[in-house]
Amino acid sequence: ELNKSAQMCKCICFNALSSLSDMMFVKRHISARAAGMNGNGPTKLVDPLEDPVPGVGTYEDFNTIDWVREKSKDRDRHREITNKSRQSTVALLHSVSDAFSGWLLMLLVGLMSGSALAGGIDIAAHWLTDMKGGVCLIGFWFNHEHCCWTSNETTFQERDRCPQWQSWAELITGTSEGAFAYIVNYLMYIFWALLFSFLAVTLVRAFAPYACGSGIPEIKTILSGFIIRGYLGKWTLIIKTITLVLAVSSGLSLGKEGPLVHVACCCANILCHLFTKYRKNEAKRREVLSAAAAVGVSVAFGAPIGGVLFSLEEVSYYFPLKTLWRSFFAALVAAFTLRSINPFGNSRLVLFYVEFHAPWHLVELAPFILLGIFGGLWGALFIRANIAWCRRRKSTRLGHYPVIEVLVVAALTAVLAFPNSYTRMSGAELISELFNDCSLLDSSQLCGYKQVYTGAGNSLADRPAGKGLYTALWQLALALVFKMLITVITFGMKVPSGLFIPSMAIGAIAGRLLGVGMEQLAYYNHDWFIFKGWCSPGADCITPGLYAMVGAAACLGGVTRMTVSLVVIMFELTGGLEYIVPLMAATMTSKWVADAFGREGIYEAHIRLNGYPFLEPKEEFEHSSLTVDVMRPRRSDPALAVLTQEGMTVGEVEALVESTHYSGFPVVVSKESQRLVGFALRRDLLISIDNARKRQEGIVSASQVVFTEHAPSQAPDAPPPLRLRGIMDLSPFTVTDHTPMDITVDIFRKLGLRQCLVTHNGRLLGIITKKDILKHMAQIANRDPDSILFN
Amino acid sequence: ELNKSAQMCKCICFNALSSLSDMMFVKRHISARAAGMNGNGPTKLVDPLEDPVPGVGTYEDFNTIDWVREKSKDRDRHREITNKSRQSTVALLHSVSDAFSGWLLMLLVGLMSGSALAGGIDIAAHWLTDMKGGVCLIGFWFNHEHCCWTSNETTFQERDRCPQWQSWAELITGTSEGAFAYIVNYLMYIFWALLFSFLAVTLVRAFAPYACGSGIPEIKTILSGFIIRGYLGKWTLIIKTITLVLAVSSGLSLGKEGPLVHVACCCANILCHLFTKYRKNEAKRREVLSAAAAVGVSVAFGAPIGGVLFSLEEVSYYFPLKTLWRSFFAALVAAFTLRSINPFGNSRLVLFYVEFHAPWHLVELAPFILLGIFGGLWGALFIRANIAWCRRRKSTRLGHYPVIEVLVVAALTAVLAFPNSYTRMSGAELISELFNDCSLLDSSQLCGYKQVYTGAGNSLADRPAGKGLYTALWQLALALVFKMLITVITFGMKVPSGLFIPSMAIGAIAGRLLGVGMEQLAYYNHDWFIFKGWCSPGADCITPGLYAMVGAAACLGGVTRMTVSLVVIMFELTGGLEYIVPLMAATMTSKWVADAFGREGIYEAHIRLNGYPFLEPKEEFEHSSLTVDVMRPRRSDPALAVLTQEGMTVGEVEALVESTHYSGFPVVVSKESQRLVGFALRRDLLISIDNARKRQEGIVSASQVVFTEHAPSQAPDAPPPLRLRGIMDLSPFTVTDHTPMDITVDIFRKLGLRQCLVTHNGRLLGIITKKDILKHMAQIANRDPDSILFN
Repeated sequence: ELNKSAQMCKCICFNALSSLSDMMFVKRHISARAAGMNGNGPTKLVDPLEDPVPGVGTYEDFNTIDWVREKSKDRDRHREITNKSRQSTVALLHSVSDAFSGWLLMLLVGLMSGSALAGGIDIAAHWLTDMKGGVCLIGFWFNHEHCCWTSNETTFQERDRCPQWQSWAELITGTSEGAFAYIVNYLMYIFWALLFSFLAVTLVRAFAPYACGSGIPEIKTILSGFIIRGYLGKWTLIIKTITLVLAVSSGLSLGKEGPLVHVACCCANILCHLFTKYRKNEAKRREVLSAAAAVGVSVAFGAPIGGVLFSLEEVSYYFPLKTLWRSFFAALVAAFTLRSINPFGNSRLVLFYVEFHAPWHLVELAPFILLGIFGGLWGALFIRANIAWCRRRKSTRLGHYPVIEVLVVAALTAVLAFPNSYTRMSGAELISELFNDCSLLDSSQLCGYKQVYTGAGNSLADRPAGKGLYTALWQLALALVFKMLITVITFGMKVPSGLFIPSMAIGAIAGRLLGVGMEQLAYYNHDWFIFKGWCSPGADCITPGLYAMVGAAACLGGVTRMTVSLVVIMFELTGGLEYIVPLMAATMTSKWVADAFGREGIYEAHIRLNGYPFLEPKEEFEHSSLTVDVMRPRRSDPALAVLTQEGMTVGEVEALVESTHYSGFPVVVSKESQRLVGFALRRDLLISIDNARKRQEGIVSASQVVFTEHAPSQAPDAPPPLRLRGIMDLSPFTVTDHTPMDITVDIFRKLGLRQCLVTHNGRLLGIITKKDILKHMAQIANRDPDSILFN
Repeated sequence: ELNKSAQMCKCICFNALSSLSDMMFVKRHISARAAGMNGNGPTKLVDPLEDPVPGVGTYEDFNTIDWVREKSKDRDRHREITNKSRQSTVALLHSVSDAFSGWLLMLLVGLMSGSALAGGIDIAAHWLTDMKGGVCLIGFWFNHEHCCWTSNETTFQERDRCPQWQSWAELITGTSEGAFAYIVNYLMYIFWALLFSFLAVTLVRAFAPYACGSGIPEIKTILSGFIIRGYLGKWTLIIKTITLVLAVSSGLSLGKEGPLVHVACCCANILCHLFTKYRKNEAKRREVLSAAAAVGVSVAFGAPIGGVLFSLEEVSYYFPLKTLWRSFFAALVAAFTLRSINPFGNSRLVLFYVEFHAPWHLVELAPFILLGIFGGLWGALFIRANIAWCRRRKSTRLGHYPVIEVLVVAALTAVLAFPNSYTRMSGAELISELFNDCSLLDSSQLCGYKQVYTGAGNSLADRPAGKGLYTALWQLALALVFKMLITVITFGMKVPSGLFIPSMAIGAIAGRLLGVGMEQLAYYNHDWFIFKGWCSPGADCITPGLYAMVGAAACLGGVTRMTVSLVVIMFELTGGLEYIVPLMAATMTSKWVADAFGREGIYEAHIRLNGYPFLEPKEEFEHSSLTVDVMRPRRSDPALAVLTQEGMTVGEVEALVESTHYSGFPVVVSKESQRLVGFALRRDLLISIDNARKRQEGIVSASQVVFTEHAPSQAPDAPPPLRLRGIMDLSPFTVTDHTPMDITVDIFRKLGLRQCLVTHNGRLLGIITKKDILKHMAQIANRDPDSILFN
């Protein structure tokens, strides 16, 4: 996907407006720094550029930003505003509005993500999902629930069947009974599934190829400083929103929770354009995007605190405390906006509201840990299988027919899912049903217990399983196998697809099965010593719904390797501190088991599969190499391409730049001394020279390029020199060749560097880039170092 | 306090055992690195030290650690264990136990802090506080509640007065009625207050001077890398635990929540000694301490998530994700241990369990924001007043009489507090009562409403205030003024004193007053347009308890500037997502208002007052200076003291070290070229030379000191050279002189540096230390740069 886009990307296309404003920015930047110098001891001034060149200081697509430079730029901007604010009231107001623009942006992100998108997506998906089963006669735009609201049948069983709502069989054949009606419904179900999935995949392919997948791997990479233009653009937003609804409604084994993070980030990115502060600065924009990731999870699960921790733990790279507080604000705004829209129709904040009545017993930790092991094994297995399948898709002809692939999988899913009521319903409904605690009057199959009259006993007491429950268990077991297989091939297709709901569904099924098993075991063997004392007959000692919840957490943990955020999300779903310990036990076990098979979560695995330049902040660099082993040039390579601070002509510089593909060149005092002066980026060099040749008089190939503060004396008939000190980074990062690589990796991670120069005893020796580090890490892990595609 | 200790600290006192193990460590360290080299391309070996010198690589008291070196050391250790684990089963088991030792340590920290300390402190403080009022006749070791448990009077009013419990007046005079009995109780109250506070202050002074105060400023500094030996030692733990109980019981306006963080950190530090991994490594130990800070808040408020966020937001400096997860685990363990001890006697996890019945209305945001403004103003005012008072204590004769000061304040507090029932009760009880929602049968004065019969109305409906309530309001108003004044002079005395409870109490009183005011306003004016529609007569529209809670959050926020953690702690107290928005509104307003008067919270202000070397990670460096303006040597200073890599004799090196006070010296190729080779620490130099003179044959003052890899050729009759490459840091950090200070500060913060070398065009120019930066920042803020005491 991205490879192709990278190849076809038209690299140097500037937006005229943005270049203009950049130019103005550089001017202000310099004057601010110059203004701030006074009264602060003798300082050397940065050589003022004659005229800042448009484009200098921006990035190309598929490149990594320089965090330090971006943050420094923002501090300059802020400094300038603060300085000005002392001069006039207007400037003061500007300064105040600048300070509050971050909060305003957060408010907007929260409102937009919460209402327009999450609410809209919820309602639309609900409606389309119901449409697969039938249609409302009052108006086709009503979903089943709304259609039957006005119905007179108010008893619980009858509410599901109201005369206004007709299944397709009723509509077409006039009856809802019999084999023929069943077949008609079956076929209509498949038809809608195919139609929805076809629409989804063609829309994605036609308008926004970036809209596919969950988007979390890419967002992680973007937040770490990578640039993928258009990935968070308006087309991606529109198409992803529409196709997400279609994909979810088509019945494919995917969820909308992960993609909601992408959608929220798109919203944030678009809203960033309203504020200069965020539009112009890649680092500041990434702070907003981190908050948006929190908003996405907050609206997906109604868990604002969990969302913030998700962003902190799983997605973000640079997450200062200011962002934590703002993310929390945005997440809350979004959660409350969603609640006031009330798409779940229950005025609850959360997707699966659970209220358990019985406390858990210490003995139950054993099955909970068992669920953790299952979750871990499944997570590890899923990641391997899914990555193998995706790699196959990339390397074989399978990848050339995405539409057919989606249609085949959708057809397969529909055909296999319809006969089993637990796979026919949507993932969210399934989870909700599995989490549910059976009350006495519950009519669902899962609550098909035999009625026993224990006198004045607990109305929720454990009861023996009846025929209904046994059927349900068989169906659930089949659903488990089906979901496990189909999810592996579904995730990674060219439609928006989240992994949260399918993973949770698998865990919830396994948990419910184990829970019912435990319940029956305890019911029939309450005199066993492990049950004695806390599980007497007539007591409600085992809650199968809790097992389902713990299982869901374990499987989600195994797949994504989330920890705190997962526990907090699940805690916010239930609202009771009581159940944190079971959740924690299962999540910890699941992570340990899964980590034993491979330390990467599904998102990191996909990042690696796609060759993005992502330096995992969680993993330590364990090898004992030194920087000199990783840097370029290697011993056998030609010497490092450097510029000298004076003495080179424009022609020579151009020849050097043309003959290499490096993105930047160190500037040294002289080739002999190799003493480092600064670093100039290829892009800035090319743009500046090009610009100078066009606009500056007398600049020819023989003109000298000068990086020094003062132009050197020249022969009187020589052409005027081209002064480029302004585009040179005067504070390039350096490490010595003896620096252990673990320290160098730490520096790269913490400061967000793209490259670093290597010195030996004060002389420039080489350069080390993020890509070099990633290649080296790949080599150590016996992987192909050429799988790292970008820098 | 610390100044004195610094002066009297006997600087170079090694623990023989620790030196020995250090020696072994360095050996392993080197062999590990050497072993890891093979098969990884040609690398240069670090010159193997002939014999590692004990003490090299450790730190002196009141010095800052080198985070990079510590973390690198730990990675070496880990690498070695991993490499070995492939060789034998025993080594594999060692590797597994090493991996799980962190979790085991967390479990122990949680158990110990939760049970022995927090539970014990709670129970003891409860008992001693009750003792001020009377004694239990069954046994003096029962507190009031336990004493009356067996009492027959089970009605609500009577439970407070049971025959087994006698006030001092009853015991002495035989009656509890009349003015004489009142005076006896009054005098006994003052007597106990004086006794407890006297014991507290003398114990602190005699055994553990570090036990005073809240400890959070010092813990912040320690976590940022400073070393204060004994601050987290066993004596501090024992004395702080005892004196905390005494101080809280003496009725002084202080809380035990802040000091619990210190106590938990002491526990963690002591438990660290059980595990080599944490005992030996200052960076690893600080990870455990960060988790312990979370544990402290978790047990203080029964808020595990809030505790983790508190540690993340407020206390910690280096908080990797692994620590987040472990902190959460420890915090949970502690919270559940505390619950199973059940010191609050209500089997609730939390200190103040609140359950409100009425939702809040959007209109109420106005009074909530008003509370936020009050909280912010109070916070800013408190910080100024308290710092001014503490500075006065430091600079005038007041500071010489800490015992008298404590006794005077305790007497003043007791005399003024006794007559008012709201100040007589402990802070926690007061807050609990203020948070409480009045039910119809509530007998407390705060619920002294007139009974109105609204027919079948809401039983919690708003009612007109009665005489009891008016009395309560007057008393509360007086209590508010009293608490505001007394807290300013109490915080910072030489007893353990927390600020959470007093701040919350002040906010809760203000909030309750405003809440009752709003309630009465709404009751009498329910036809006003702002109340219309949501506050009809007979409805429960205003909950004064909620106002108290919001006020408490606002005041605590104003004083400490906590944000997310504060909201989450308050959320965990109430357990409802409903009330997050009011809390958030108040906290945000409070922070903004307080920040307008000064950006420092109380803990940062105390750090600055004490001159600790703490680089605030939250605040951006706003000035536009360059590194060259901040580094030493200044233009007028003599040149930088450097060592050359060869050519200097032992005598010359010693003379150079003796003639300066710097903690380290750059090593250059030669004085002429000033090309940087490495950096050697003063302490390591002195220890190594001293050691070599004693143990190595032929080392005399004329011996050459050699930092190069290969010894240079010497005259045959010259004494053998002293090779010191082993103690030299081969990868010193460098920045260029043109680097803007904001970037340099960022590097210091993110990498946890103590010093950094400054180069110009590849030549060494100077050095910049944390202290230089802090002095520069003080200068910019027009403060005395000499207030920064440590490096």
